[in-house]
Amino acid sequence: MIIPRSIKNLIEAFERLPGIGPKTAARLTFYLLHIPEEEIDSLAEAVGRLKRDTVTCQTCFNVSEKDPCRICSSPQRERTILAVVESPLDVLALEKAGFKGLYHVLQGVIDPLNNIGPEELKIKELLQRVAADSPPDSLRDSRRAGPTRRVDGETRRVFLGGGFKEIILATNPSVEGEATAMYIKRELDRSAFGGKVTRLARGLPVGGDLEYADDITLGKAIEGRTEY
Amino acid sequence: MIIPRSIKNLIEAFERLPGIGPKTAARLTFYLLHIPEEEIDSLAEAVGRLKRDTVTCQTCFNVSEKDPCRICSSPQRERTILAVVESPLDVLALEKAGFKGLYHVLQGVIDPLNNIGPEELKIKELLQRVAADSPPDSLRDSRRAGPTRRVDGETRRVFLGGGFKEIILATNPSVEGEATAMYIKRELDRSAFGGKVTRLARGLPVGGDLEYADDITLGKAIEGRTEY
Repeated sequence: MIIPRSIKNLIEAFERLPGIGPKTAARLTFYLLHIPEEEIDSLAEAVGRLKRDTVTCQTCFNVSEKDPCRICSSPQRERTILAVVESPLDVLALEKAGFKGLYHVLQGVIDPLNNIGPEELKIKELLQRVAADSPPDSLRDSRRAGPTRRVDGETRRVFLGGGFKEIILATNPSVEGEATAMYIKRELDRSAFGGKVTRLARGLPVGGDLEYADDITLGKAIEGRTEY
Repeated sequence: MIIPRSIKNLIEAFERLPGIGPKTAARLTFYLLHIPEEEIDSLAEAVGRLKRDTVTCQTCFNVSEKDPCRICSSPQRERTILAVVESPLDVLALEKAGFKGLYHVLQGVIDPLNNIGPEELKIKELLQRVAADSPPDSLRDSRRAGPTRRVDGETRRVFLGGGFKEIILATNPSVEGEATAMYIKRELDRSAFGGKVTRLARGLPVGGDLEYADDITLGKAIEGRTEY
């Protein structure tokens, strides 16, 4: 093919990105040829800086400028609600939707077909975080204790307050997301965590059309209907 | 918003590209966070090198590594057929389709709504190129001369051979593309060019479906039907 090496290189680099096929890659590349050099350089720099200027927060495992991240270290956040999400993109989505609690990024979902088990995700870290966040021993008196529960054949008293009051399992409503949520729910049930474990509501998307909704979504929408 | 500066910068840079909305921009950016640093660096370098390593061929106005470009300077090309296209992307498309002639890249189309007239395009250069490509005076004898034609009120003898025998006006089958082709056709008619001026066939796309073809395309397909 008679195209310059540098154009071919960029087309190939774009093609490796998800959701970008050969045609889009070529279109993007030739578009860049038309824009001022400063703008190209700023794109090149933004790409180059991406990884150098970011770290993973060792509390919530989101991408961040520093560790702990700005959310984990913010006094303005609602610290008793924790949203467990699959990826940093989901944090972005929940932030835009106005969520004010804390996050825990799993960095994936349980996906046996792709050899991803619970140990590849940040589930162990989640359980440790929830446990560390439990009230200290001095507070574990009967006034703060919740109901008892049978765990692994023995009766345990569950403790509320002090730490997280609610954990929202905000994984995607996909097969893998549901399986991951189910796994974490079971692990939390077996732990000392005594708060609520919730899941995001399933139903019709706002602006959506009943006619085009799939059976399962519509089923969930009926199941979860609210009083008007 | 609580997202690192370097991530925000790249999302914004991606968003400026055509056909990439805020969601795709964010998805691409977070994807890049997961791939090895070498691969990111190679993308950054490919972007940065794009403009530094390319020039515009001053014969055909395609992007190229050198001037004249490899197509214009190749002895293997069919030098009597010239395809006039809108952009370098169209050159790529025709190359893939197996076209073996030469190209002339207009670098746009006549588009009055966006203030793009014929003088903004490489039409003057096309006419000069076609004229320069005409046979030298010594060859303008009656044996090589074609039919006479009335141009601007006077009868002119048209000369064939030596230069281009056919000019394919391969602009897009859009309103602007058709208008541009029509304008160039008129200019060529008024020039000394005596070869054929053609246009790419309009009809059903291969693999397409008669049922879903629009009226105009189907009309063109009927009009241009070929013997079986």
